[in-house]
Amino acid sequence: MRYFQVDELHDIGQKIFTACGAPVEEAAVLIDELVASSLMGVDSHGVSSIGQYVQEVRDGIVVPGAPLEVMRDHGALMVVDCGFNFGIVQALKATDLLAARVRETGIACAVAERSHHVGRLGTYPQRLAEAGLIGLAFACGSTKYRRLGRVAPWGGAGGRISTNPIAYAVPNGDWPILFDMTTASIPQQKLKILQRAGKQAPAGYLIDGQGRDTQDPGAVLDGDGAILPFGGIQGHKGYGLALLAEMLSGFLPGDTFGDDVKRGRYCNAFTLITIDPEASCGRGAYEALIADYSAYIKSSPPRDPKRPVILPGELERSTMEERRRDGIPVSSEEWENIRKHAALVGVSL
Amino acid sequence: MRYFQVDELHDIGQKIFTACGAPVEEAAVLIDELVASSLMGVDSHGVSSIGQYVQEVRDGIVVPGAPLEVMRDHGALMVVDCGFNFGIVQALKATDLLAARVRETGIACAVAERSHHVGRLGTYPQRLAEAGLIGLAFACGSTKYRRLGRVAPWGGAGGRISTNPIAYAVPNGDWPILFDMTTASIPQQKLKILQRAGKQAPAGYLIDGQGRDTQDPGAVLDGDGAILPFGGIQGHKGYGLALLAEMLSGFLPGDTFGDDVKRGRYCNAFTLITIDPEASCGRGAYEALIADYSAYIKSSPPRDPKRPVILPGELERSTMEERRRDGIPVSSEEWENIRKHAALVGVSL
Repeated sequence: MRYFQVDELHDIGQKIFTACGAPVEEAAVLIDELVASSLMGVDSHGVSSIGQYVQEVRDGIVVPGAPLEVMRDHGALMVVDCGFNFGIVQALKATDLLAARVRETGIACAVAERSHHVGRLGTYPQRLAEAGLIGLAFACGSTKYRRLGRVAPWGGAGGRISTNPIAYAVPNGDWPILFDMTTASIPQQKLKILQRAGKQAPAGYLIDGQGRDTQDPGAVLDGDGAILPFGGIQGHKGYGLALLAEMLSGFLPGDTFGDDVKRGRYCNAFTLITIDPEASCGRGAYEALIADYSAYIKSSPPRDPKRPVILPGELERSTMEERRRDGIPVSSEEWENIRKHAALVGVSL
Repeated sequence: MRYFQVDELHDIGQKIFTACGAPVEEAAVLIDELVASSLMGVDSHGVSSIGQYVQEVRDGIVVPGAPLEVMRDHGALMVVDCGFNFGIVQALKATDLLAARVRETGIACAVAERSHHVGRLGTYPQRLAEAGLIGLAFACGSTKYRRLGRVAPWGGAGGRISTNPIAYAVPNGDWPILFDMTTASIPQQKLKILQRAGKQAPAGYLIDGQGRDTQDPGAVLDGDGAILPFGGIQGHKGYGLALLAEMLSGFLPGDTFGDDVKRGRYCNAFTLITIDPEASCGRGAYEALIADYSAYIKSSPPRDPKRPVILPGELERSTMEERRRDGIPVSSEEWENIRKHAALVGVSL
């Protein structure tokens, strides 16, 4: 394990992504976001993605520098074409468009076409909350190629849905209430980590191809098993929420991937919604109510005296503070992967 | 148990609610919706509510006939004052306002002030879906009196949140995909039913005042225990979603109940959001994708061969068909309660 400072990783990413053909400012935006996710402890969507993104540029999946184009603009709803530029770069542009539009409309929505992987979904609501707005985000695997999804519908034995995340953020003083979940019991990425470590998944997360309970990650990753929707014995709720994410992100843009199998496999569909409390009770009044409610929630005695009640996003904040101080851990395997991909675009680390 | 036909219950409700002072058309809308919920098997929000609503009129909590007023209109977001008319009547008016507005704006939102109980939350998204729109709804106990909420935050031992429901619907041929859940493990209403029957709650739903697991409904209903957010070992997800419903419905209208404790105890806050797929990929294209995806989901082999995979809302549809044929069951206790309250407003049944 190596520990890196923010600036160090930023410089590395900046070099690599500009070498990939990203404009200087877009390379900076992209590595900023990956480093932020790593800082917050969301390692699956942090700097460990550098290698994958480089590979996708080399494979022609990503088109660095492609503009974001507004294809339809219907009052408060915009359909944006991401042109397969880096998903994070384009989703942040879409977020900024929304943040401007919502001042006029009270609520606003961006539906994305032809988007590459958007990374940590909570980023976009978080940015909206930092602008005093409520942010909501939904994503899924690209529609047509959802057939790669390994999450079973409730009561089903076959994978039919991707691990469709839902995220939201609400302004709350100097750090938003920030929530970002997958509607599956466990993301595939974590199953891979368990498998590599020779470990079992928690009970109640997986089934094999016959629909029987299993804890073996291989049943899903190498077999025809499936991941259950989250919720335990109330998995019908996780299933319903997984479908919500699919309905809002996967289908609203239409079937935008056509027969582009290569891209379909690596891309996301996403939809962002924002609400301006100024259009309702006023931003100041809203934030005062949230502050009051936050204090009330946190006044609950904890079940475990050593673990006080926290709000969604507080864990990420404290991880961020720790890692700013102690550095961001990158495993040797991940570091080798970054070096290898850097070399492929002529950057030696 | 008695079984009633739709027309019979409709006539009964029509008489009772007009006797309460509701205008004829509003009485019809209200009893229509209660009967529809009973037909769909959502008995907790069906005709069993008649007695409660009569009582609330007599207590001055409900103001029959109060108009719905648009207090703020900011492009795609409207704040509506429900004036404490029957919650269902006003929420349906708000739904119709939204359905008209969203044709211009692509996405639209209604935030409610001074609303009485809105009944089955799925009603409003369902009506939007029947108009070819996507509907989303969030509700909670009235903000200021949320302190009556008996759901614990994740990791907490004290009730802090109400059983905040989230519902959505999406057009899908002749019956929408229709999802309506509480973010708690179990609604208080069901705990009361278990308690009356001398039964225990399922394991993992409740804690006592010391934060220890319990299955005794009395620990919550008569003690200082709490209901856990839904999600089992991933209850942090149910907690996050409960807060989302609170943030969107409870706080956007501001603190609209002031010091009106009497009303605060019986009322809901709600926020509706609708999206018009016509503003995105087009309504026809959207519905074709949903139909295709629905078939794909349902093609999953079931875990239990006797229980094929269904979409959210299908169970309610089949219950509706059964009850249209066989009648709506009303227990003797419920029927006596309806008769008693009918008599209070001069209607003898």
